[in-house]
Amino acid sequence: MTTPLDRVRIVLCATSHPGNIGATARAMLAMGLSRLVLVSPQRFPDAEADALASGATAVLRNAEVVTTLDAALAGAVLAIGFSARPREFAGAVLPVRAAAAEALRYAQAGEVALVFGHEMSGLSNDELARCQIVATIPTDPDFASLNLAAAVQVAAYEMRLAAFDGTVWQAPAFEPATQDEIAQLFAHGERALIALAFLRPAHPKRLLPRLRRLFARARLEKEEVNILRGILARIEERLDERGGK
Amino acid sequence: MTTPLDRVRIVLCATSHPGNIGATARAMLAMGLSRLVLVSPQRFPDAEADALASGATAVLRNAEVVTTLDAALAGAVLAIGFSARPREFAGAVLPVRAAAAEALRYAQAGEVALVFGHEMSGLSNDELARCQIVATIPTDPDFASLNLAAAVQVAAYEMRLAAFDGTVWQAPAFEPATQDEIAQLFAHGERALIALAFLRPAHPKRLLPRLRRLFARARLEKEEVNILRGILARIEERLDERGGK
Repeated sequence: MTTPLDRVRIVLCATSHPGNIGATARAMLAMGLSRLVLVSPQRFPDAEADALASGATAVLRNAEVVTTLDAALAGAVLAIGFSARPREFAGAVLPVRAAAAEALRYAQAGEVALVFGHEMSGLSNDELARCQIVATIPTDPDFASLNLAAAVQVAAYEMRLAAFDGTVWQAPAFEPATQDEIAQLFAHGERALIALAFLRPAHPKRLLPRLRRLFARARLEKEEVNILRGILARIEERLDERGGK
Repeated sequence: MTTPLDRVRIVLCATSHPGNIGATARAMLAMGLSRLVLVSPQRFPDAEADALASGATAVLRNAEVVTTLDAALAGAVLAIGFSARPREFAGAVLPVRAAAAEALRYAQAGEVALVFGHEMSGLSNDELARCQIVATIPTDPDFASLNLAAAVQVAAYEMRLAAFDGTVWQAPAFEPATQDEIAQLFAHGERALIALAFLRPAHPKRLLPRLRRLFARARLEKEEVNILRGILARIEERLDERGGK
């Protein structure tokens, strides 16, 4: 039987401890999630990961290992980044329960990624800028220190409740853009802004992160990406005509 | 400040792995629980428990070690036993979320215990018989294998949400753009798109309404409007240079 949870992947970025990867696999499988993507793990595969997976080793065997977050998000229509602390580039910040409801809504239509950062430092601003939603797990402000696998456990638990709590599914009325379409849009935008000499690679300031944040909040649709790329192509074309004279 | 969570104790029965005791302490403290009672732990105190507590060692230092569950429950007005599997015990079985609400209700008046069994075998019938409520954490029926500390994490998380409604941090506030700034941005954008010959006034199609919709969703900030107008001005400037030749 296929469930919306089959379209939910857990992405761990730059994980230091293989034990956390194993414990994450177990936390996932207990809640019915099985797709794990690892971005540049420090040690993987590893015997400690296997030990802590405790029966969920199939999740580890099928885990995908990639080198960039963009690769990990390929094909996803929604990326939700988990962060314990207030961050500058956060768009919508939702408690994990509301984020899980939103994730499930998108999982009717396409692939969803739940993204977790490094054990100590969490997600970088650059990683967060690739997420449309920031989810946060309520903790005691005096000791807001969740173990990585514990955070995945809570998120996966909320995903399961969102999926099977008898809530009615609402199919989105639009086709969301995938993360790789959005990554290509940003790459195209960067080229065009450089061609316009609006963006100077030597002094980029905070232009690109600001633009990423804006469009992350908007949660781009496929047709919108096409329109924006059409505009960018047209800019390049006009600049080329000029250069050619 | 005293909270109802101060009247909630976590009871671990016959725990085998000291690492689970440490991870439990961390899971508790992150959610604002600090009272841990250990019934005949196999190894405690232990360096592995300290390591996995990761800053929550005060919970371990203050943990009470007793030899019977009855001693662990002394003074409590409600004991909730956690069990993954259907059990002979005929009391009320509640999902953890409902059990947490019930626990909080009792914690207004008195002491409440959340009781967790051995890592492999769970709570015995004899132990369960001392609990007024059985709580169960929804899991995938094909892999209903939660780590002990992961189960405590979910229970503590639900207790925190029951107690505090899940208030979370918000992204730093930025200054929103005014409606007239946005109207001027769109007017500017329309001029630039016409200059680019991307928008044909005779056949506008739905280009502008689509763009309006995108940026309405994003809820533009003042600085973003400035960035976008800067890009538009640069496009016009480059087209003018070309026209002037």
